[in-house]
Amino acid sequence: MSYKEVELKDYEYVLSVIENDKERVFFKDDVNEDYSHDELGGIKKMPDIVVQVLSTEEVSKIMKYAYENNIPVTPRGSGTGLVGAAVPLEGGIVIDLSKMNKILELDEENLTLTLEPGVLLMEISKYVEEHELFYPPDPGEKSATIGGNINTNAGGMRAVKYGVTRDYIRGLEVVLPNGEVVNLGGKVVKNSSGYSLKDLIIGSEGTLGIVTKAILRLLPLPKKAVSLLIPFNTLEDAIETVPKIIKSKSIPTAIEFMQREAILAAEEFLGKSFPDKSSDAYLLLTFDGNSTEEIEKNYENVANICLEAGALDVLISDTEERQESIWSARGCFLEAIKALTTEMDEVDVVVPRNLIGKFVTFTHELEKEKNIRIKSFGHAGDGNLHIYILRDDLDEENWNKKLTEIMQIMYDKAKELQGQVSGEHGIGFAKKGYLKQSLPNECIGIMRGIKYSFDPKNILNPGKVCE
Amino acid sequence: MSYKEVELKDYEYVLSVIENDKERVFFKDDVNEDYSHDELGGIKKMPDIVVQVLSTEEVSKIMKYAYENNIPVTPRGSGTGLVGAAVPLEGGIVIDLSKMNKILELDEENLTLTLEPGVLLMEISKYVEEHELFYPPDPGEKSATIGGNINTNAGGMRAVKYGVTRDYIRGLEVVLPNGEVVNLGGKVVKNSSGYSLKDLIIGSEGTLGIVTKAILRLLPLPKKAVSLLIPFNTLEDAIETVPKIIKSKSIPTAIEFMQREAILAAEEFLGKSFPDKSSDAYLLLTFDGNSTEEIEKNYENVANICLEAGALDVLISDTEERQESIWSARGCFLEAIKALTTEMDEVDVVVPRNLIGKFVTFTHELEKEKNIRIKSFGHAGDGNLHIYILRDDLDEENWNKKLTEIMQIMYDKAKELQGQVSGEHGIGFAKKGYLKQSLPNECIGIMRGIKYSFDPKNILNPGKVCE
Repeated sequence: MSYKEVELKDYEYVLSVIENDKERVFFKDDVNEDYSHDELGGIKKMPDIVVQVLSTEEVSKIMKYAYENNIPVTPRGSGTGLVGAAVPLEGGIVIDLSKMNKILELDEENLTLTLEPGVLLMEISKYVEEHELFYPPDPGEKSATIGGNINTNAGGMRAVKYGVTRDYIRGLEVVLPNGEVVNLGGKVVKNSSGYSLKDLIIGSEGTLGIVTKAILRLLPLPKKAVSLLIPFNTLEDAIETVPKIIKSKSIPTAIEFMQREAILAAEEFLGKSFPDKSSDAYLLLTFDGNSTEEIEKNYENVANICLEAGALDVLISDTEERQESIWSARGCFLEAIKALTTEMDEVDVVVPRNLIGKFVTFTHELEKEKNIRIKSFGHAGDGNLHIYILRDDLDEENWNKKLTEIMQIMYDKAKELQGQVSGEHGIGFAKKGYLKQSLPNECIGIMRGIKYSFDPKNILNPGKVCE
Repeated sequence: MSYKEVELKDYEYVLSVIENDKERVFFKDDVNEDYSHDELGGIKKMPDIVVQVLSTEEVSKIMKYAYENNIPVTPRGSGTGLVGAAVPLEGGIVIDLSKMNKILELDEENLTLTLEPGVLLMEISKYVEEHELFYPPDPGEKSATIGGNINTNAGGMRAVKYGVTRDYIRGLEVVLPNGEVVNLGGKVVKNSSGYSLKDLIIGSEGTLGIVTKAILRLLPLPKKAVSLLIPFNTLEDAIETVPKIIKSKSIPTAIEFMQREAILAAEEFLGKSFPDKSSDAYLLLTFDGNSTEEIEKNYENVANICLEAGALDVLISDTEERQESIWSARGCFLEAIKALTTEMDEVDVVVPRNLIGKFVTFTHELEKEKNIRIKSFGHAGDGNLHIYILRDDLDEENWNKKLTEIMQIMYDKAKELQGQVSGEHGIGFAKKGYLKQSLPNECIGIMRGIKYSFDPKNILNPGKVCE
């Protein structure tokens, strides 16, 4: 991997591609420091050039130039990632797609939404709901771009009932590492036409191609939603209830778990009060459907299961305001926990959902044993945990040592429970070692072969995922 | 591509792997002719060895031997394919997986079913429904194996509401071309751990690896289902109604279209009478849900839309018997049409669902213009057409000439309408040329690179998909 040194003439070429709009391209010292890291910030590297693109054509031309000249390129959305996938490890060009943020077409006859990759999740839900339509994936980070969500195959809260981002991508326009533009899939509902390159791009963290357009599958908007906030004595009690709910065949839209500490942090972060914080642990469930009666049967059934399993109460929220107050707290847990400490790192493992209780108990024991704060919240209904290890006042050396040790123990445990390294945050740079441990060598070898098929010069987002 | 000639000692090795069970391995002249072709039968080639495997270990050992000795291997399920994917173009070994047909585990806490690849679709639905669970993919060919369905990413009738096979595969055990066994995915609901090799295997038609175990995602079984049979004056009238239904936000489980001729053929084939055949064209819809009220609102809404759009009547089937009589006719259209003629070939294109009317009208004009019988039926709700061109009494030369010409015209039209070559039957050998025309060279090149990453010696199912 030896790349060309980026020079002034490269900057000048990029500038010419974007019609000499100096507001959209930055060179060396003029690059904002934000472009050197993502949300978690543990890995940093400054790019030589940042270009804020406005069209597929711009992406294609820059990519073609970079390919011919052997300059590494890293695509970037809002930078809300947590594993360093958008960090330009080798310098070179960062293509910032956040200004390619137009919604292009709502097709109500095909129930699709065509949009550019920089559209934010919060904008999508707002837009489609105005048309009584629904884009189910619902990750906590609403200021993430759809391009970023596609590249991590983000799952979010509603995966229990509705699945993940992959399930809602009908088609993609992609700029390949050599600058060629290809369309994968389309508005079609079914497709068996060769290997699914679309499904390879989904979750590939910007290493195989740059998504410049996406066709999303929409559903009719459910007319009613009800949330249940259910306090338990302990988190273990709460989580052990989840497989019973799944088994009951009354499938909620979402099943989240949370602890008082995260709730208090969220209250402080938002400056808003949460409806209940008398208990140590909560399940938060949503049910949706087209009529109150349809939902009622389901949630009454589940409420009874919870009460039999030791729930202290069942608080029903059927107004939008009340639901908003609960879910906005849930949505800011990451930021709220971040505000509690000096630095943190995360584990985003996913295990079969009947084993999530085992994993949570295990992290609690680890917290005591290793004498370090570990906070978790996450998707109890789909087995995807978000676990944060807090640095607090540890010095650099001790922090690195302890963090490495604890992360290794957790990933080993996840593997033992037939889990996977990442449920939705991806591998990026930070989790490469754990991915390698978790998969057979053959799979890593095949992944590298795939990367080579797309990008023989290894110029697109090098150093990530399987390299 | 020069492969080793298969000799007696190769047969003897395979025999030793399966513990000298001579009932399960066949050599040269003892191989049944059925193994030389699939359901449509247009492409034929005899294998040198057929082995009916019973375990992953057997598959792995045979594959490893074949890899080391450069012998081509073609995996096969029930042989219900239509594009020659299971035909051993280069001879060698056919691994018949139809006896690996055990259901291994129903996990009600994770809502998964783990099974071997030879389990038939009809067995899966029977088994899970006894446990009030539901495996939504519902292709017409119920004697297909789940392994075959995974390898074509079959869609079936319920794709309108529930999606396709891909959406219900949580994990796969796969024997790679070099004989190594790997597990992709698992029981986990979310997964962002490197490139999705699982999604590459799905739809790869036995060219990248041999599926030896699958973990399916199940849903709770809907408690009620109602079918509507809706006669129209013309097929165009019927199909033009579909985008209006989709737009109405009352999403049916299935929307099929059918013509009187197919119905009459099905009646004759089954020896059973169909509830109505007074009209030329029909839509057949299903709605499912957990209560009569929940379904009623939806289907009344859709019935009104159809009547406004010119439907002659709406026949409601809410008993199991009556639904069975309609759907069993729908299920045998392929065989029934096959019985009408001497030979036929098929087109399985998929177009955006608001353009299916255009495509059907186009084939009707083509039928007249080219003076050849063309029969179609299919999935109006998801844009996937099954179109059959009948040879009748054409001689070999004229048939080949006419067929080639008509197929080319149809695939060109599909491309013009932003469609894809195959909705669910795959590419296999028969559609390779059309796939190549429909995709940019870059995509074909990448697919070949992927094939090489999995199978550098090109011994697994050579000559298919993108080669």
